[in-house]
Amino acid sequence: MTATPSSIRSLTVDLGERSYPIHVAPGLLDDPQCLRPYLAGRQVMVVTNETVAPLYLERLKGSLGSELDVREVILPDGEHTKTLASVERIWDALLAAGFNRRCTLVALGGGVIGDMAGYAAACYQRGVAFIQVPTTLLSQVDSSVGGKTGVNHPRGKNMIGAFWQPRAVLIDTQTLDTLPARELSAGLAEVIKYGLIRDPVFLGWLEANMAGLLARDGELLSEAILRSCAIKAEVVAADETEQGARAMLNLGHTFGHAIEAHQGYGQWLHGEAVGAGMLMAATLSQQLGWLSGDDVARVARVIESAGLPLTAPAAMDAEAFLERMRLDKKNLDDRIRLVLLRRLGEACIHDETPPARLHDFLSEYPRA
Amino acid sequence: MTATPSSIRSLTVDLGERSYPIHVAPGLLDDPQCLRPYLAGRQVMVVTNETVAPLYLERLKGSLGSELDVREVILPDGEHTKTLASVERIWDALLAAGFNRRCTLVALGGGVIGDMAGYAAACYQRGVAFIQVPTTLLSQVDSSVGGKTGVNHPRGKNMIGAFWQPRAVLIDTQTLDTLPARELSAGLAEVIKYGLIRDPVFLGWLEANMAGLLARDGELLSEAILRSCAIKAEVVAADETEQGARAMLNLGHTFGHAIEAHQGYGQWLHGEAVGAGMLMAATLSQQLGWLSGDDVARVARVIESAGLPLTAPAAMDAEAFLERMRLDKKNLDDRIRLVLLRRLGEACIHDETPPARLHDFLSEYPRA
Repeated sequence: MTATPSSIRSLTVDLGERSYPIHVAPGLLDDPQCLRPYLAGRQVMVVTNETVAPLYLERLKGSLGSELDVREVILPDGEHTKTLASVERIWDALLAAGFNRRCTLVALGGGVIGDMAGYAAACYQRGVAFIQVPTTLLSQVDSSVGGKTGVNHPRGKNMIGAFWQPRAVLIDTQTLDTLPARELSAGLAEVIKYGLIRDPVFLGWLEANMAGLLARDGELLSEAILRSCAIKAEVVAADETEQGARAMLNLGHTFGHAIEAHQGYGQWLHGEAVGAGMLMAATLSQQLGWLSGDDVARVARVIESAGLPLTAPAAMDAEAFLERMRLDKKNLDDRIRLVLLRRLGEACIHDETPPARLHDFLSEYPRA
Repeated sequence: MTATPSSIRSLTVDLGERSYPIHVAPGLLDDPQCLRPYLAGRQVMVVTNETVAPLYLERLKGSLGSELDVREVILPDGEHTKTLASVERIWDALLAAGFNRRCTLVALGGGVIGDMAGYAAACYQRGVAFIQVPTTLLSQVDSSVGGKTGVNHPRGKNMIGAFWQPRAVLIDTQTLDTLPARELSAGLAEVIKYGLIRDPVFLGWLEANMAGLLARDGELLSEAILRSCAIKAEVVAADETEQGARAMLNLGHTFGHAIEAHQGYGQWLHGEAVGAGMLMAATLSQQLGWLSGDDVARVARVIESAGLPLTAPAAMDAEAFLERMRLDKKNLDDRIRLVLLRRLGEACIHDETPPARLHDFLSEYPRA
């Protein structure tokens, strides 16, 4: 199936002079017009990984035609490659090719590739053009909007990076056909998050359509991706550099990051940890009197229906959570800040839970 | 001498919400109020080098008082340290200290320290506060304004970096008392540049006061620094990310960078190469009919009076120049762009010199 203009659905992320479009369509990668309007010049560096390259690199390059100077960097796959050393490989390739400040970097892959290619673009000759072609559901609904780029440091995730907006985000929903089921579910965790923090109607739509999403129905996936990006864009437009309201996008992430870090990155997928973390946030919200027991049961059901785990790891006691949570970048002045739910469809930021209460909550919370 | 409010002269660099002040005064480093208004929080990391630390680090720390968490990174001195590896040392120190996104980096030193500390601040946790305390004339009149940060790559100068504005620039003119004479002259090359590109009255003032500047008269140096920063601020405010007019700040730099690169960095100081390059630009401007012979002689006299070399290195033939000039970041679409002088006090950007003519000019130009 080849994309025709009529099958492309689009959204503009409104950031003043840094505004850019997100285009979503099955088969978009084969459309020769999908990338070209967003190139800064003739020089194009595609950054991808060893898993994605055999699947989609030639298709992408085919759509670019032959008059351009198109090069590629193929990095190993996985979160452990999200290092400054990998970004240096991209810079080395750009300099070896003699690329100038009118070159364009294209990220073809998941969130790790997008974060690294975006950071490489942010800092090459103090900033060059960047286009995202995300190929996982998680990156399509998360890294498409927000401009966060960067790499991990041995002492912490995403510690080195920059805010750098792409010129366009191009989402071919057919790339989800090759995504492992576990990664599809992990992406759905973030989709559910958007309903929980800001859109009760979308939450109901997800409950009604979860089976179709898991069956990779293209129309339903397009709708879920666009709605997720639209919600994230609204939140980010109000708070581009994460001073306040944007923190609500971290629902489930403070608990989730603690799970990921404690279990060792890669054991739990990010989305799996966020799913379990969102249920923890909902449960604490109930204890604060904001959600009903029925609300929490509904949160549990939609997370479970996406094929995600519900309980925290058996090996993590309260102190194991708190130790990691104290390092969270959201914290200010040594208070743990949490994103909780005032009601289903409305998040709030809360830093007034007494430490002892948080300890009790974490001690009593169900483990696997 | 301790700075009193009345002896501080100031200038605001107007960049909308990223505007910041430049304060100039003898003894400013001893003023306990000089840094504190610009700190983002309690955590302060001073970045300096092995030459500057023994001279000024304790004074700076003394002015900060004891309630803050002040750490330091002391790097080796010299352009060869301006690498990503040095910036990684700064990031490692920030993470080892557990500094969060409300920390502040203070650059205490010359342009190399400012560029590295600024880049470290731009990318630590996607951007933290940054204060410049430049201690060389070159960095006081050049890096104080413009927000350029970054490091060198084996394949080119300043290839990796970011635009990142400081919260304030604090210039203690007494730090120039310890500056080697050759570096004072190199800084004056950039000061002369501001007169040549935009301010004939300032050029006349420099001609009249060069002896006093070389004698390190504090009042004259303050005036020269402020006037230079004001001119650069006007140019940068109109073109923050260097799309057009800002290129005029590179008068003498295309020829100068070729000299630096050919001779090996550190053989010619940057300002020395810029001085010789400005005279080359003036001479080519005369050949294009824009300057008179008297104008060029005046340019030569003011450069020479600052203690700077006038001729290009004997070992560089025309091709040695052209080879380096073709790599200049200003070039677009394979045309060499030069900053020339329409008249004394007015620069222009010119990319229409035919290659053969440029080759002849470079062949015939006087060598040392």
